[in-house]
This record gives sequence, structure tokens and C-alpha cells, in this order.
Amino acid sequence: MSLMKSWVASANSADCPFPLNNLPYGVFETAELDPRCGVAIGDMILDCRAAEETGLIALADLPLFDVPFWNEVMEEGPDLWAALRARLIEILAEGSADQAAATALLVPQADAELHMPFLIAEYTDFYAGKNHAFNVGTMFRGPENALPPNWLHIPIGYNGRASSVVVSGTDVRRPWGQLKGPNDDAPRFAPCQRFDLELEMGAIVGTGSYGPITVQEADDNIFGYVLLNDWSARDIQAWEYQPLGPFQAKATATTISPWIVTKAALEPFRTDTPAREKELLPHLRDCGPMLYDIDLSVTLAPAGKMATTIAQTNYKEMYYSAAQQLAHHTTSGCPMNAGDLLGSGTISGAEKSERGSLLELSWGGQEPLELDTGETRSFLEDGDTLTLHGAAKGDGYTIGFGDCAGTVLAALDDPYKR
Amino acid sequence: MSLMKSWVASANSADCPFPLNNLPYGVFETAELDPRCGVAIGDMILDCRAAEETGLIALADLPLFDVPFWNEVMEEGPDLWAALRARLIEILAEGSADQAAATALLVPQADAELHMPFLIAEYTDFYAGKNHAFNVGTMFRGPENALPPNWLHIPIGYNGRASSVVVSGTDVRRPWGQLKGPNDDAPRFAPCQRFDLELEMGAIVGTGSYGPITVQEADDNIFGYVLLNDWSARDIQAWEYQPLGPFQAKATATTISPWIVTKAALEPFRTDTPAREKELLPHLRDCGPMLYDIDLSVTLAPAGKMATTIAQTNYKEMYYSAAQQLAHHTTSGCPMNAGDLLGSGTISGAEKSERGSLLELSWGGQEPLELDTGETRSFLEDGDTLTLHGAAKGDGYTIGFGDCAGTVLAALDDPYKR
Repeated sequence: MSLMKSWVASANSADCPFPLNNLPYGVFETAELDPRCGVAIGDMILDCRAAEETGLIALADLPLFDVPFWNEVMEEGPDLWAALRARLIEILAEGSADQAAATALLVPQADAELHMPFLIAEYTDFYAGKNHAFNVGTMFRGPENALPPNWLHIPIGYNGRASSVVVSGTDVRRPWGQLKGPNDDAPRFAPCQRFDLELEMGAIVGTGSYGPITVQEADDNIFGYVLLNDWSARDIQAWEYQPLGPFQAKATATTISPWIVTKAALEPFRTDTPAREKELLPHLRDCGPMLYDIDLSVTLAPAGKMATTIAQTNYKEMYYSAAQQLAHHTTSGCPMNAGDLLGSGTISGAEKSERGSLLELSWGGQEPLELDTGETRSFLEDGDTLTLHGAAKGDGYTIGFGDCAGTVLAALDDPYKR
Repeated sequence: MSLMKSWVASANSADCPFPLNNLPYGVFETAELDPRCGVAIGDMILDCRAAEETGLIALADLPLFDVPFWNEVMEEGPDLWAALRARLIEILAEGSADQAAATALLVPQADAELHMPFLIAEYTDFYAGKNHAFNVGTMFRGPENALPPNWLHIPIGYNGRASSVVVSGTDVRRPWGQLKGPNDDAPRFAPCQRFDLELEMGAIVGTGSYGPITVQEADDNIFGYVLLNDWSARDIQAWEYQPLGPFQAKATATTISPWIVTKAALEPFRTDTPAREKELLPHLRDCGPMLYDIDLSVTLAPAGKMATTIAQTNYKEMYYSAAQQLAHHTTSGCPMNAGDLLGSGTISGAEKSERGSLLELSWGGQEPLELDTGETRSFLEDGDTLTLHGAAKGDGYTIGFGDCAGTVLAALDDPYKR
């Protein structure tokens, strides 16, 4: 697909993350405007609440934009999603009859503060990138037993903590937790020493479901995608995770990028999942190209210093698609709701430079990573800013997500001091 | 403590689960009244919305009862909770000046349908009953390695699925899932064959928190308690749970009793946790009697047949209290919200007749349980109605929770047939 031109000139550059082809959904605030839904176009944001109030957008009986989150749009379902996107393209396309009216409703991104784009209903995190699962399994169990026996048959996942999901730009405080090294007699309560990132994509459930749904129905239910960093306390996890899985190790924070990139904007980038090493059971089989060709990277900037790109990979490295994860999520009859967030699992490529976590990049701390500043990292240090970047490259245009960034703050001296 | 007398005569019987000492909070509906908050007293319900509208309850600037759930009361915090309870006792006590006004606002429980008493924010399930953990561990790993090394140091828990929590009386459909026996070459997708109950108590977080909180602060944050049955698909769980814990095995349904018994009503029944086999780290230590003396039992009634009591135990069999679980939940900085539900974990006593799951009662199916009907059970069969009962026995009075019941429906023939 090629660039669709907009009368917002900044949207027409091949490098702009927010061309007319994209139109991602966020929530913004300015000195004059209280938090509200908006659509990114070039270096501007179209104020959706104002567009609805002035009649520029008039799609449903109910107001869609009287609240500062996108859940009400999600709940309306795919027909409304398509109609909204079509109307936004009509308004913002070169030669639009609505240019004058819409110009008055544009806000510079530089003047806006971005908020969480939707209310997280519940948050599930998967483990569906094969290189990541293989690397972690090799470190813990050796290469012969790296993948658990179920891994090639089901997208393994666990329920995360929705209350801990934050938007890009939110600082992340290094957690305390119970730690016990293999040679320690007893555990101690102390600040995490092995704090890590996980490079993931997040899929957002747009319409709810009751009872099991097919992979195709699951794909239809997905509203859009964000970048996602699932901050992980490896030492807390090592002590707590048997037998019921990670808990406090994953509950400090999960950061998402501020713009929901719609499934429609990503359609031109669909690509197949990798060859199946074991045939999937029918209810989990692909129903077409299920992944997306999205370049992903992570940069790490020590406090006050330049950033180093520490990993580069692609969303097509996943073994299971978000639709397959969602279909699996419903097999037991588990009800799903608008605003449920599904983390893909850490995305790592085959090469060392393509690994999506410091645990893998430093091989459990045994091979510290060299930064361009000359420093090294086994795990995150206080003051480090981690930023995830994502881009799907079309013919003369780029679909971007906005940065997914967070800075590590030092642990509290005494977490119980009031 | 002895019975507090009410002018609602049915509340003054020693066996009535809802004396003036109790005053549990629910949400009810009748043919004439749409869903609203109410308080159980004897065999009646006091209509809280009407009580607020008529000025009988006037405690805060904001209306508390304009919504059919108790979350707004929870969010107000302990001072309001105490004031509301004091006012309800004043209204409903023998000799009350409000008797005439309140009589008009009473609805017979027999005419009411009960709904979920609160909006579940997030749901966490723990594994904090030692006999249960020991029994399950013995079955899977032998008695020498029954308890995981972390078990005596942290209340192990995992995040469950809030969307799957239902109120007593809701039927529970036997789930499908991916199953693989130890001798099977490959997994298959089929209805669960080892469907089970878990006898638990649920604690409800009343006020939210940010950052780690102490055990005392956690206790102060708890609003009340319900009975909880965490329906469990043991065969789905066995195949899926490594390495990240239970997922679809626990996502079909969790049933709670309809009345929130407040912490205040349970105060006379506080009791100590068991002796500690390993000293707890300071941030998890008891700050007083942390458990409650509550008799618990489970009955199983095959379709159309009499019920058999299959287990009898007590909440004081727990190793960790709900306050200790909540304190642990916040160690990483995990934000907690009003309406978060914490399952205690399965509560089993030391004796065989005190085990809170069929997995333990039938020892993994090796020792089928005999029912009073002459039938046997290793796991649940279609049509079985499971009911949890709870009662704290005071001097001439009983604190009850209302039944926590659900009937197992047959699995769908084809879960994807529309």
C-alpha cells in the first residue's frame, strides 16, 4: 500500500509515524483542554470530543467521546470501527471538504500530555515467542529441555495485574521483594537486584465474548495494538514462581505506548506465522496470515547519557498470533471484555542482537552487554531510561506507535516509612 | 459476644444466619424493585437505596446507594464503614425509634433475587492452606518434597480472572480444554474429565493502596469476607500449568456467596494463625489474631437427589491470613483497588473428612468418595450441585454468609457451533 495524502502537511513525510494511513487513537490533555480522546495525524492531534460536539463526527446515537478513554468505541464493534476510520480518513484526506472545520480542532502534539488510551479491563501476558522461551528454558533447564512439553501445542499465558499497567513516560520505581539466592540459607526482603525489561506487543480486545470463540472470531474481536514493556524482577520471580507462576515479579509496572494502532492500519503488513513444528489442534490453527511485519527495537539510556540500541527484532518472530492467544483464552468459557490487554510475550529473534530482554542479552548476567557509552549492563540500573520503538514500513510511509518509555527510579530506602 | 436483639423477630433466633450482630451487605432485585444495595436482617432485607432516599441513612455528602454495588461504600474507608454499621444497628435494634420508618423498607428475602454484591476489580487466588498444599504436593512430588521451598516464607498466589467470578446460584458449564494424559502421544481438545471444587474464603479489598503496606494496614483495608468456590479443571491444569501457573483451568467460573460479611461482624471470632515453622520476615508477621473461627462445610447433591456433606473444616486452618496475603500482594508496589477479591486458597483440615477439594478427598481419583445416596465421586459429574456453607458461632447467635452454590451443566457438544 502507498501513502495516503493528508492536508496536514507533516503527515506526508515517509518517516512520519502518523500518516493518514495510520490514524492511531489516544487520550490527550493540554493546558486548555481536559483529558479527551484524540487521533494522531502528522505532528497534530484531532480533538475527537470537539469533533463530535461540533457534528464533524456523527456516527452513533450515543456520544462516543464524552469520556477520556476509547472503551466505548471498542464496545460498539467492528462496523462502527470501520465507519469511524472511514470518516476520519474523509475528514483528514487531501482535498477534504472538512479541512476548514477540522483545522480548528487540531492540537499540536508538542502541547499535549498523553494519558492511558483506554481502561484496562484485565491484563494477560503470554509466553509465545519461541526464541525467548528457548533462551530462558536453556538457561534454566539446558537446551535439551528448553521448551516445556506443552509449548508447541498451546500459547502459554498467565493473568497479570491490570492495575499496574501505565502509559509511556511514567517512571518505574525499582521494587522490593523477597529474594533468596541458591546458596542463601533463608530469604531476605530487599530491593530487586535483577530488574529487567521485556519487549512485547500488546493486543487490545475490542468486543467481549462469552464462551469459546474461533481464531477468526478472535481476530475480528481485536481492536488494535500497542508496544508493551513488561518490567520484570528476575530475582523475585526465581524465588516465588513455583508452583503457580510469576506474581509480584511482574506487578510493579507494565508500560504501554500511548497510541492504539488499529488493526485496520496494520492490515497491509499481515504475514504468516512460522512453520509449525507440531500440528496445532483445529481450534488453534491459523485462518490466514496472523502476524504483522513490524520492526521493533529497544534503546537504553543511562541517566543523562546517550541511548544505545540494545535489541532489534520484529513482531513476525512470534510463534502464536494475538488471535490464537485470544482464542485459547476463551476455551474454558472465560468471559472476555472490551479493554482486555494481551501481552504477546517477549519477542526475540534468532540472533543475539535480537533478544528482547536483558536476561537473554546478558545471558543471565554472565555476558554483560556493552553500551555505546562504554558502560556495561547485566540488568537495569537506577536512572536507566528504556524505550521501545515500533514501525511498519509501507510504500513511502511508516506506521508508528509512539515511544513506549520509562525511567527506573531508585528503590525506596524503607518501603514502610510513611 | 452475645446476641444483639432486633425488632425484626426472625433475626433473634440462635440459628438465624443474619442477626443484628451480622448485617451483611448484598445486592437484590424484586418484581417491583430494580437491583439495589440491601442489608440482610433475619429473613428480610433492608432496602438501602430507599433508606437513603427517605433520609433514614444520611452519612455522607455523596449518595452511597445510587448504584447496585457496594464499591462506593468500600472506597469511603473505615470511618464510613463504622458509621454505616452503627447507624444500621441503631435503626434495626430492639426499641429503635426508626422501627416504623424502617418497616416500610423491608423486603422478604423469599421475594428477592440476589446479584453480585460488588464489582470485582481484580481477582487473586492464593495457595495458603498448609494441609491442602501438603496434600497436593504429596500427590505430585511425594511427601518429602510436598511443600515448595518458598511456601513457609510467602503466601503463594497467582492472578485469577475477575470476569469469571459469579454469584451463588449461577450454573457452571463444564469446560472444554486441551488435555494430555501421561501416556498420550499428543494432546486433544475435549470436555474436562476432572472437574473439581475448591472450598475457600474470599477477602474483599475495601480501600485501595499504592506502594507496599504493612500487615496492619492491610487488615485495616479489608472490607469483608465471602465464601468462595474456585471451580478447577484438574486435567486442563496438569497440562497447562508449567511454567507460568494455572490459566484456563481456573477461568471457567469462581462462585462467591451473595452477602459480604463485614470485618466488624467477624471481630469476636478472631483467632491466631498456627505456630510458624519458619519465622516470617518482619513485613509479613502477624500483628494480632489474624484468622477467624468460622465453621465451613461443603455439600454435594447429585441431580434430583439428597445432598451429602463431603467436607467439614474451619477458616482457622489457614496458615496465612488475608491481611498477610494482601500485604505480600503490595510488596512490589502493585496498586490495589476497592473491589479486589483475594481467594484464601483451598482450606483443608488435617483429617480426610476435612479436605476442601475432591482432588484431595478422592486422592487424585484413587479413592472415590461415597455419597449418602450410595453413589461415588472421584470428580464432579454433570448435574451435581455444590454448596459451601459457613457459620461463626457466638453466644446465642450465628454469623452466616448465605449459601455459595452452583450446579454443573454438561459440556457443550460443540463449543464452536453457533
